[in-house]
Amino acid sequence: MIPKVTMIGGGSWATAIIKMLSDNVTQKEIFWWMRSAEAITHLQKYKHNPNYLSSVEIRIPEENISNDLSKVIDTADYIILNVPAAFLKETLKAIKPGQLKGKKIISAIKGIVPDENLIIGEFLHQKYDIPFEDVVVISGPCHAEEVALEKLSYLTIASVDVELAELFASMLSTRYIKTNVSDDIFGTEYAAVLKNIYAVASGICHGVGYGDNFQAVLISNAIREINRFVNAVHPISRDIKESAYLGDLLVTAYSQFSRNRTFGNMIGKGYTVKSAQLEMNMIAEGYYAANCMHYINKKYKVDMPISRAVYAILYEKHSPHIEMRLLTEQLN
Amino acid sequence: MIPKVTMIGGGSWATAIIKMLSDNVTQKEIFWWMRSAEAITHLQKYKHNPNYLSSVEIRIPEENISNDLSKVIDTADYIILNVPAAFLKETLKAIKPGQLKGKKIISAIKGIVPDENLIIGEFLHQKYDIPFEDVVVISGPCHAEEVALEKLSYLTIASVDVELAELFASMLSTRYIKTNVSDDIFGTEYAAVLKNIYAVASGICHGVGYGDNFQAVLISNAIREINRFVNAVHPISRDIKESAYLGDLLVTAYSQFSRNRTFGNMIGKGYTVKSAQLEMNMIAEGYYAANCMHYINKKYKVDMPISRAVYAILYEKHSPHIEMRLLTEQLN
Repeated sequence: MIPKVTMIGGGSWATAIIKMLSDNVTQKEIFWWMRSAEAITHLQKYKHNPNYLSSVEIRIPEENISNDLSKVIDTADYIILNVPAAFLKETLKAIKPGQLKGKKIISAIKGIVPDENLIIGEFLHQKYDIPFEDVVVISGPCHAEEVALEKLSYLTIASVDVELAELFASMLSTRYIKTNVSDDIFGTEYAAVLKNIYAVASGICHGVGYGDNFQAVLISNAIREINRFVNAVHPISRDIKESAYLGDLLVTAYSQFSRNRTFGNMIGKGYTVKSAQLEMNMIAEGYYAANCMHYINKKYKVDMPISRAVYAILYEKHSPHIEMRLLTEQLN
Repeated sequence: MIPKVTMIGGGSWATAIIKMLSDNVTQKEIFWWMRSAEAITHLQKYKHNPNYLSSVEIRIPEENISNDLSKVIDTADYIILNVPAAFLKETLKAIKPGQLKGKKIISAIKGIVPDENLIIGEFLHQKYDIPFEDVVVISGPCHAEEVALEKLSYLTIASVDVELAELFASMLSTRYIKTNVSDDIFGTEYAAVLKNIYAVASGICHGVGYGDNFQAVLISNAIREINRFVNAVHPISRDIKESAYLGDLLVTAYSQFSRNRTFGNMIGKGYTVKSAQLEMNMIAEGYYAANCMHYINKKYKVDMPISRAVYAILYEKHSPHIEMRLLTEQLN
């Protein structure tokens, strides 16, 4: 029996996952919620998402696409959360907490819930009483754009319940998607959040004038910083050099297309945060993540010089030139 | 007392190291050997290397530049070897083995001596009776081109004699060069050799059509492959995520300018090895390294699927498409 799956969110990563699931011959069992009624009408009529990955043909039944959150959640066994972390609380206000009970909740979000300063799994556990055994995390390294092109990509599916992770992994596996399974939901979520901060750092360094030699030093320090942090938060045996951690960091920090890197580059070149955001017409996830991690790390007190430098530049208005020069003294 | 240093080799990395040493106020104590009499005349007259990093002003006395190998070796306390690994044996034929006795020998080569299948430190030890305590290894991540631009770069200086490493590190440190010191000459040399094979692999994958998502998986597997190998050859406590290992891999594999990556890309696109070499007018170090490592690993039998795939493509004429598809099954 194929479980019914509902996707919550209409962005490019949501569209990419819809494609993977549909290529897995489960079109009829896929449901899709997004906010925009216009996008839904377009999708139903033309079978393409008008705003993201528009080349991808959407083959799920048109009646399965809806902006009635309560209905699509009640319909499904598996719920994939894929709105920006900053909008998660607001989105879920449309349903009663009890409606998520007994469902498997899959986070494709890669962010921290603002104000709460919780990763998605913890947020679901604390606020919606979802047992950790019902939480699944999807992680890259995976640009959605390459999924649209059917370029071979590897996903890591993490859950405390490894059988559940394996089942969900089998629903995503296609000719162009290979999956790894892990039981490390905390490490996987935190690494996915932190990498956006390092992509911002990488952009700042480029903007300030550092070259590829330094970039390599920065990233090799960043993965050690991730390692220190996740070992402090959740000390289990893990190899931080695996794709879900190091690979995810690499694909983001070395991408010319990363929004986080572009944002950082503008900051490094002297834009204010506000003008960079206006110019880009969106906010890089790493901007929020730097703030949330700053607060979370007050508890753990892990040595995180790169994250601290990014926080100081973005939130304490320190000069990127001076802050990065100070950072260079702390790396090796 | 400042030791006298002789550089053997006239390429871009040699020119970059000459610049670091000269910016360290030791111009008079630096000697430079290169094969080409024309290049020497040009250097003496115009103070710039005509062939490599031509923007760099060379400020060592003109009488210190020579193509008399025996003389410049006898003059110096420290000898920096910086010719391609493939030419090392031939170059050293011009001197008597005893002439290296008692000198500190610094390898900036990053390669394996062909036929011997030895890294430079072992070669010097076995063939020239140099004690390991007198051997120093210089490693990146460091593109010579960025040194010419005075972009901040970190070098790792490795020697069994850590005091010697520290002394030599202090001779290279400048405003734009920071140094780490290590006692791991084997791991540092092997990692520097292996990274060229992975840069070739990275180019082949790009040529065959794989994207950035797969590239991140490839490199996160490559650093684990390096780790397994150096732990088998020289099992000491080391963190493979340090700049000398992971950073050096990143700067090479992610560089658009890497000759190894360019060579691999041509192979992936269907060029034969010979036509790729003719087109590039030079041979990528990774091409030799793949062969040497194949022989060296017959002894250690470490699981190295990426290196094996590159060897099969370059030396057994396997199809890059098929070999890389097989490789994807072995990565995670």
